[in-house]
Amino acid sequence: MTTTTTETDLDQLCVNTIRTLSMDAVQNANSGHPGAPMALAPLAYVLYTRVMKHNPANADWFDRDRFVLSAGHASMLLYSSLYLAGYGLTLDDLKRFRQLGSPTAGHPEYGDAAGIEATTGPLGQGISMAVGMALAEAMLADRYNRPGHELIDHCTYAIASDGDLQEGVASEACSLAGHLGLGKLIVFYDNNHIQLAGETAMAFSEDVGRRFEAYGWHVQDVGEDLGLETLENAAEAARGVPDRPSLVMVRSHIGFGAPNLQDTNKAHGSPLGEEEVKLTKEVYGWPTEPPFVVPDEALEHFRSAAAARGELEAEWRDRAESYRSEHPDLWEELSLVMERRLPDGWDREVPKFRPDGGMIATRKASNQVIQWVAGEVPHLVSGSADLEPSTLTLIEDGGSVEKGSYSGRNVHYGVREHGMGAIVNGLNLHGLRAFGSTFFNFLDYMKPAVRLAAIMHLPSIFVFTHDSIGLGEDGTTHQPIDPSAMVQLPCRKMRKRP
Amino acid sequence: MTTTTTETDLDQLCVNTIRTLSMDAVQNANSGHPGAPMALAPLAYVLYTRVMKHNPANADWFDRDRFVLSAGHASMLLYSSLYLAGYGLTLDDLKRFRQLGSPTAGHPEYGDAAGIEATTGPLGQGISMAVGMALAEAMLADRYNRPGHELIDHCTYAIASDGDLQEGVASEACSLAGHLGLGKLIVFYDNNHIQLAGETAMAFSEDVGRRFEAYGWHVQDVGEDLGLETLENAAEAARGVPDRPSLVMVRSHIGFGAPNLQDTNKAHGSPLGEEEVKLTKEVYGWPTEPPFVVPDEALEHFRSAAAARGELEAEWRDRAESYRSEHPDLWEELSLVMERRLPDGWDREVPKFRPDGGMIATRKASNQVIQWVAGEVPHLVSGSADLEPSTLTLIEDGGSVEKGSYSGRNVHYGVREHGMGAIVNGLNLHGLRAFGSTFFNFLDYMKPAVRLAAIMHLPSIFVFTHDSIGLGEDGTTHQPIDPSAMVQLPCRKMRKRP
Repeated sequence: MTTTTTETDLDQLCVNTIRTLSMDAVQNANSGHPGAPMALAPLAYVLYTRVMKHNPANADWFDRDRFVLSAGHASMLLYSSLYLAGYGLTLDDLKRFRQLGSPTAGHPEYGDAAGIEATTGPLGQGISMAVGMALAEAMLADRYNRPGHELIDHCTYAIASDGDLQEGVASEACSLAGHLGLGKLIVFYDNNHIQLAGETAMAFSEDVGRRFEAYGWHVQDVGEDLGLETLENAAEAARGVPDRPSLVMVRSHIGFGAPNLQDTNKAHGSPLGEEEVKLTKEVYGWPTEPPFVVPDEALEHFRSAAAARGELEAEWRDRAESYRSEHPDLWEELSLVMERRLPDGWDREVPKFRPDGGMIATRKASNQVIQWVAGEVPHLVSGSADLEPSTLTLIEDGGSVEKGSYSGRNVHYGVREHGMGAIVNGLNLHGLRAFGSTFFNFLDYMKPAVRLAAIMHLPSIFVFTHDSIGLGEDGTTHQPIDPSAMVQLPCRKMRKRP
Repeated sequence: MTTTTTETDLDQLCVNTIRTLSMDAVQNANSGHPGAPMALAPLAYVLYTRVMKHNPANADWFDRDRFVLSAGHASMLLYSSLYLAGYGLTLDDLKRFRQLGSPTAGHPEYGDAAGIEATTGPLGQGISMAVGMALAEAMLADRYNRPGHELIDHCTYAIASDGDLQEGVASEACSLAGHLGLGKLIVFYDNNHIQLAGETAMAFSEDVGRRFEAYGWHVQDVGEDLGLETLENAAEAARGVPDRPSLVMVRSHIGFGAPNLQDTNKAHGSPLGEEEVKLTKEVYGWPTEPPFVVPDEALEHFRSAAAARGELEAEWRDRAESYRSEHPDLWEELSLVMERRLPDGWDREVPKFRPDGGMIATRKASNQVIQWVAGEVPHLVSGSADLEPSTLTLIEDGGSVEKGSYSGRNVHYGVREHGMGAIVNGLNLHGLRAFGSTFFNFLDYMKPAVRLAAIMHLPSIFVFTHDSIGLGEDGTTHQPIDPSAMVQLPCRKMRKRP
């Protein structure tokens, strides 16, 4: 994919359509975040029409590039783009932004509309799930690709805000992404100098690029140049570094074009106001009335450009067909992942533990069950936040996931419970059946990720051991009393001994 | 404080006493973490006898340097040192390590013994509370020091492990510490290449020094040189950089001296075993029997060196007396902090809101109450994780805490809820009455810090607004249903209208 396209008036019209739809939808809902969509419209446009491998006609195409809007509050950027790219969202859906039952919730919700790859909004979660998705891609590629058959070969793109990068969960996940060398992860950092309470510099003055280099990432800074070709070239350069994740720093201007509100926190989380919307549209050279204007030529151009990206799927399907005939067993296994299902009859021989079968520690029983499931379900992936010798969750003979060698089944997350939770969600979003383990007490450290798994109805599994004051000698710091209030523990009446 | 002392056989004897007491106590308890205390004994020794300004005879001396063992699992390092320095812990207390009711819990618990500055163990919390303590020092110094009266002038030292630095909460707090330029925070990073599950390199290969430089820290790496003079010089160099926090990287060897277990994860979280204890003592040239040998000359030397540090308090008391006579009002205010009390009669005129007094949003009522308390309680400190315009918790006319100017009463934590929670705990440990605010939903992000506040019985206040599905349009991601299960909301019967 070389970059020969340049920016035209039509491109600019498409970019401004994203902007005005986003402003109008927020104004119409009388709540929401207009500033970031206005600023990042060129980036979304270039991703959906020139950069990403995706097919609006089939949002579920397995080898598509993933896109995660980690800055979930900028949801109108996503919704406007999905509508314009032809993913199925309608203009009426945009008009119902933030209304009960609409697919265009305040923050993007997985499953509500085609093209929403993850539920985001709680900051730091999206970028961390993107790490999980990129890891899943690497694991599946190493496991299933064969010489001449690069069936799994896609990128994960994300847009992260200042707030995302301030959250500890993102630090954890990004450190691990660097450690594992996830080269197909490409994060655009919306470095807009503004957050809810005011200037980002009030609280955040670290050298973000240097920090990510310390994590082992490849870092580019395009400054204030949000030219389409610049962004396209940055994505290409990022893809050209196969063994390191990429951060592309973009110095954007929140509320771009709003004569009175650009570069202020008033453009962050509130409607611009009727008057400012009007003035901004004048700056864009846009009709000030009615709202939700979509120029025919913009819609047509956006959709045809996105549809052209979708043609990549047909070529992939041909390759998949040849893979299927040459490697039918692998195809069948991979299909479990692609179709998000478990093997037929996987649970025919569930191990049973009877009260009269002798004493066994529950985590040892758990370990036996894990070994059994691992044999039945090839896409079960284990992992722990540096506690696998205690939680006993290692898949024996499963091998470890390491930088450059991703075919193992055990992920070593380090002491990063929260990052583990979010990455497990990313792995499950990608079709793997991944679980993560730690002590029950440290559920506290990862609760926001567990919560998102629940909201998304993901099959993420979290294994918590050491679940009582029986932990005793480690002291109150390690005795999980209060975490019990957080979860409804499965409770079953034991059968009485005969 | 120039460094003229050098290492003697007596120093080595003291260091090995820390080591052998730690090994013996873990062996005696038959659980615990011997490896890190063995590795870090020289550091603890040099801190308590040569570096820190502290007084074992008065653990509560307000202008003492603080020491936080963030790697709380290495608790025997702290207990051995406190015993040897003369803080009141007895040899019998060490023999009762990890036993119910003993002051030597598995992980250090604040209040259980003099010299334990914070409850630590859940990783990342200690270093983050240390940030809060260093911030408190800076705030108090800016507020109360007067020309010729440097009454508040102490450092906060911490020891952090690999696991501490992997935790997101530490990333959040350390980024903020760099932002605020907390030059009197000095963290020793125990870079021992080993964590519970095995080699740290399994999960953690980032360039830690570079990351902390990106945060704005001053970084030193002493490599494998744990010579006392080297460590003392590193601390001095750290103190010599007044506008940046310091990280001192120490490449230690876990289980130092154990012939079969040094540099292995078997030395991390389990007793060495009787035989290895014996072999290790032989390496140290130590009597192999009985356990808990404390050479008289070691105890005497350690205690007299620590006591000599304590003489600094007398000189401080003289200065305090002169401050008190010249600035009686300031002294009275500062005394509230030093004595951890509220002004007499501060709550005489509690604002009351009556049901018949007109409608008011609860967060607006909260804002009025905050302004009132801020007037009555001079050491009330506000803060928010980038949500103060929404939580309405700013102390009006209180000013902001900024790098180089710490006399304000509002801390801008950025989008770092977890870091905020831990830093608020550190501020309260230091005598301030600090609170932090965010949306109720993000209690999830900071629960481990809230939990520690409860365990330590700290007066930390956490203000959570937007506490219902009334948040509505932001969507499920922001509607706090499940967090309610975590906290017992205060519930009071309203008086009926007459």
